[in-house]
Amino acid sequence: MLKFDEDKYRNDLTAQVNAIADGKKIADEITKQGYDNIFFVGVGGTYAMMMNFVTLAKQYTKIPVYLEQAGELVLVDNPHLTKNSLVITGSKSGDTKEIVNAEKWLKEKGIRIAAMVMSKESAVGELCDWRIPLQVFKGVEFEYLSMYGIFYGLLADNGDFPRFDEFYDQIKSNMVEGIINTQKNFDNRAEEIAKKYYNTDYQMWIGGGELWGEVYLYTMCILEEMQWLKTKAVTSAEFFHGTLELVDKDLPVFLVKSVGKYRPLDERVEAFLKKENNNLTVFDINDYMIKGFDKEFQPIISPIISTIILNGRLSKHLESHSGHDLDMRRYYRQFKY
Amino acid sequence: MLKFDEDKYRNDLTAQVNAIADGKKIADEITKQGYDNIFFVGVGGTYAMMMNFVTLAKQYTKIPVYLEQAGELVLVDNPHLTKNSLVITGSKSGDTKEIVNAEKWLKEKGIRIAAMVMSKESAVGELCDWRIPLQVFKGVEFEYLSMYGIFYGLLADNGDFPRFDEFYDQIKSNMVEGIINTQKNFDNRAEEIAKKYYNTDYQMWIGGGELWGEVYLYTMCILEEMQWLKTKAVTSAEFFHGTLELVDKDLPVFLVKSVGKYRPLDERVEAFLKKENNNLTVFDINDYMIKGFDKEFQPIISPIISTIILNGRLSKHLESHSGHDLDMRRYYRQFKY
Repeated sequence: MLKFDEDKYRNDLTAQVNAIADGKKIADEITKQGYDNIFFVGVGGTYAMMMNFVTLAKQYTKIPVYLEQAGELVLVDNPHLTKNSLVITGSKSGDTKEIVNAEKWLKEKGIRIAAMVMSKESAVGELCDWRIPLQVFKGVEFEYLSMYGIFYGLLADNGDFPRFDEFYDQIKSNMVEGIINTQKNFDNRAEEIAKKYYNTDYQMWIGGGELWGEVYLYTMCILEEMQWLKTKAVTSAEFFHGTLELVDKDLPVFLVKSVGKYRPLDERVEAFLKKENNNLTVFDINDYMIKGFDKEFQPIISPIISTIILNGRLSKHLESHSGHDLDMRRYYRQFKY
Repeated sequence: MLKFDEDKYRNDLTAQVNAIADGKKIADEITKQGYDNIFFVGVGGTYAMMMNFVTLAKQYTKIPVYLEQAGELVLVDNPHLTKNSLVITGSKSGDTKEIVNAEKWLKEKGIRIAAMVMSKESAVGELCDWRIPLQVFKGVEFEYLSMYGIFYGLLADNGDFPRFDEFYDQIKSNMVEGIINTQKNFDNRAEEIAKKYYNTDYQMWIGGGELWGEVYLYTMCILEEMQWLKTKAVTSAEFFHGTLELVDKDLPVFLVKSVGKYRPLDERVEAFLKKENNNLTVFDINDYMIKGFDKEFQPIISPIISTIILNGRLSKHLESHSGHDLDMRRYYRQFKY
């Protein structure tokens, strides 16, 4: 497959799966210390990835779980954020400006920080109390996996996720080869879609629930940032309250269908679009689900499925057709602003 | 001014300002009953309007304040939503499908509902425990004002907004004529902007903090729904993490600048855009602020300023240039879907 080093990828994924045990140990330590609430703090792709956990928290726990923009967090004194809070943040590079600033601000207040970062020897790594191990820079699937140990570990320790061990067993038995196989299975379709759409003026993307972060991320951090393609992303819950009016027969529309409780909202959108639009692409996560996971766990791992087919495969084929290198930037990290 | 019946508007606004006292009475009654948390539940424009209160809550209160999509709420059992919760919802028409469904679901669970609605004799009006009076269908400024009595009333009763009476006095003294004058002052600029941009393929809109809901609403519920113009809206906090790469010298970009604590994020975006783009329109809410309000209250009323200049005036001039009636819909409420 295009830009896919299977051996290296398998080794990295295996290491990331093994690191879930380290995340669980962090969770156990924090649980022992006690905490009142969890603040996810991110920006950009990392913020988008965190949306999934905040959404699923609503189905699992009474622990208050908040999501904050790192840049906004430091500008107000949120009364819920105290010394008894736990902040979970992350920066793949370890030097994201907003995250470093937020960590410094949090340290001054004596608030505990667990940070997903590749290296402890980075600004973000040095400022955090616990490093949540991240194996590689590219691939949001690694970020999701990095969070499983700490997040579901905290829930398990609180009695809210009693099947943690079974979940982890199923990951260890099925995740690595499952992720690789799904990408192989999707690759031909990725090529077809990329060929058809690499040069569009504008794409409308729709999704929701535990997959909304993925739709948000794919449009903003991949299509806009890495391919300079204009997009609109809207949730399935909101689609009928404004954005639908842009739909005509020819508009390129993409729908990512959830496998969880919010699926009926996606189905309503799909039924409408099948009548009113002739240029619809549906990514039903059910069609690409990894084998070996119980029904309960499928919505939890669904953003991994979404990210490996879209970020993992579709973007590589878009790059190949457009000739626009995914690493090319006009501005981001090109100069100070 | 275009499509502006000053006498009727003044009367309606005056009635809406007077109704703040009714909202405060509802707050007093609910406070007496007691409650654990507040759930704002909306969809579309009403959801967007509610974002402002949830954002400002972070500066004022320890009461947990959540925001939920009506369509999503009913699909999960959120452990924070209990008989001790208060739901604040709203539907201008009184028959919005998602809101009626959510109310029925909430009633079955015995959860109290306060609903912003024009008439008690509507589905939404009949299902709620308290009607939050709304004077007219059009104009988001009426919606914001309708929420002031109940929301800031609840905060005041909890000791979190001790200057409630001064705030209401300043509204009674300054709001009605201030809103009318600001629209008159902005009207020429609205005409210039509309003339230049009514026919664009795509517009990028940026804003944040307590104004994010307004940027979200104006792009989705006005430009997309009512003018069929393609847009991308992104927060100032996120702009630098993807969307910025779409910016070139000619792209039509619009920035709504906050007057509150999040303003530095807007200023960073503005500085960048002034260097990299020659087609930038900045709406600095400071330039249109109504006289007679203390500094503390200006961020609170800032979405009203944003909505009266954008929804109130700019959209009327867009309609006049495009010839596209703001009430024309392809789909919304045209048939069942």
